[in-house]
Amino acid sequence: MISKLVEKIQKTNAPIVVGLDPKLSFIPEDMLGSSFEEKGKNPEGAAEAFFRFNKEIIDNIYDIVPAVKPQIAMYEELGIPGLITFKKTVDYAKEKGLIVIGDIKRGDIGSTSESYAVGHLGSVTIDGESFEGFSEDFATVNPYLGSDGVKPFIDVCNRNDKGIFVLVKTSNPSSGEFQDRLIDGRPLYEIVGEQVEKWGQDSMDGAYSNVGAVVGATYPEMGKVLRDIMPHAYILVPGYGAQGGQGKDLVHFFDKDGLGAIVNSSRGIIAAWKSDKYSEFKEGKVGEAARQAALDMKKDIEQALS
Amino acid sequence: MISKLVEKIQKTNAPIVVGLDPKLSFIPEDMLGSSFEEKGKNPEGAAEAFFRFNKEIIDNIYDIVPAVKPQIAMYEELGIPGLITFKKTVDYAKEKGLIVIGDIKRGDIGSTSESYAVGHLGSVTIDGESFEGFSEDFATVNPYLGSDGVKPFIDVCNRNDKGIFVLVKTSNPSSGEFQDRLIDGRPLYEIVGEQVEKWGQDSMDGAYSNVGAVVGATYPEMGKVLRDIMPHAYILVPGYGAQGGQGKDLVHFFDKDGLGAIVNSSRGIIAAWKSDKYSEFKEGKVGEAARQAALDMKKDIEQALS
Repeated sequence: MISKLVEKIQKTNAPIVVGLDPKLSFIPEDMLGSSFEEKGKNPEGAAEAFFRFNKEIIDNIYDIVPAVKPQIAMYEELGIPGLITFKKTVDYAKEKGLIVIGDIKRGDIGSTSESYAVGHLGSVTIDGESFEGFSEDFATVNPYLGSDGVKPFIDVCNRNDKGIFVLVKTSNPSSGEFQDRLIDGRPLYEIVGEQVEKWGQDSMDGAYSNVGAVVGATYPEMGKVLRDIMPHAYILVPGYGAQGGQGKDLVHFFDKDGLGAIVNSSRGIIAAWKSDKYSEFKEGKVGEAARQAALDMKKDIEQALS
Repeated sequence: MISKLVEKIQKTNAPIVVGLDPKLSFIPEDMLGSSFEEKGKNPEGAAEAFFRFNKEIIDNIYDIVPAVKPQIAMYEELGIPGLITFKKTVDYAKEKGLIVIGDIKRGDIGSTSESYAVGHLGSVTIDGESFEGFSEDFATVNPYLGSDGVKPFIDVCNRNDKGIFVLVKTSNPSSGEFQDRLIDGRPLYEIVGEQVEKWGQDSMDGAYSNVGAVVGATYPEMGKVLRDIMPHAYILVPGYGAQGGQGKDLVHFFDKDGLGAIVNSSRGIIAAWKSDKYSEFKEGKVGEAARQAALDMKKDIEQALS
């Protein structure tokens, strides 16, 4: 699957993934009102608004970016109706040719991780017939439980041509609390990074493996070290934009040929219409503002890499 | 919420939680067949079978144990229909007076953890009205992202009288890969354990805090150390039975008064009817076998603690 993502990045010339992390406050009043009218002022109505919002974004960016990354927590917050919208969003994005990274951060003991992997990247077999659960192309995975919590994901990736991104160094302020602690003089995130590189050996797909890593844009110096430690891991870089990461910080995450990393922006793109920078886009122009913000982000990264 | 769990443990005299982790292979043919007949040989039918199976277990154990712990991965594997059964299971168990620990192992950056916390332990407000997503009493939380990934859960716990169990030392064979690595001469799980104790200070509820810890029965010596490091944290102990943990290993996880820990068994109870030990219970006696296995487990722990 990673070779498909690389191909799509090259085709769009945009190492960008749009985070589909809707919130009610991002949704224009008209869209929210008509969703509530149709489905009720309840989680069903909110989930309907999420889908309409996502569709508007997808329709306006699918030809200029390679991938989207819905954060399942935003949907899980609404319970079942939210998760139905998560699935509809995954399906719709794939229909439009986008690669879908499910930001699910799952991870458990072996047999349980296998269930997560099957539900998100594989299929269950019932009486000889296969059924897919959520059908993402990639999923993010938490490594705290060690190899036997991660390997079931890799097995499912190998069976179904899918990929994962393992949390190595996350973008949040307190990520260092455990991830930066020194083990034999080296931070935990480096130790995890080394494992990511090893795990990836069983799932090579072109120049990269299907086992990528999450490294926050907010920690560029660590990105530099991790890029070296994990030469075959694609790096998914969150934290650009709203969380404080800037284009110039990103250069370290990429290989010399401009590959090796894909940068996520969520709020900065999907809620662009609400920001001062894009004030020319009024309410109802959610999609157009998102498209402009994605194009600006592409330019920002291009300049940083050149 | 932890005080409610303690009270219920004292009332049943059973520091036991039954893991509701159904698999198709655990379900008797009759039950599976009639579920498929009603809903189809598909995820809907499988999810229906899961619910009937869970209901049978719950109906036979609700008066002798304080709590159940559905592992959401087993349900997520089936996609949306599975998650509907997860919710129905939580609701039904609560109806029968059981405390429900959602084994969800979520954890993300702050704002995203808040969404998970709201979806599982809190409620969303839409136009002034509150709606609960999955409504568990407790949830398990992954600490890899540090304090800002955990605190939103604690805030929601404080608002809604709920609790969490943070992964400290997991029961699986490779848990040591990162969790046992030495930091200033002490293993990572101790550092995490210290944080659990600190986080709990903001959510005290009787003698214990609403911030508990997960420590695997498979590592009794570490349980002993962690019991001392986290005097106010209740310990949720997985890994008893099928994973190899035995009654005699459990004594270290408890306080002197026999409180401080609750031991999980999943397969050992819910699939007891399939084991040689309970061969007197034929197919169709899933619930009765589960009840006997729970009573035997209670006796095993009682003997270990006396």
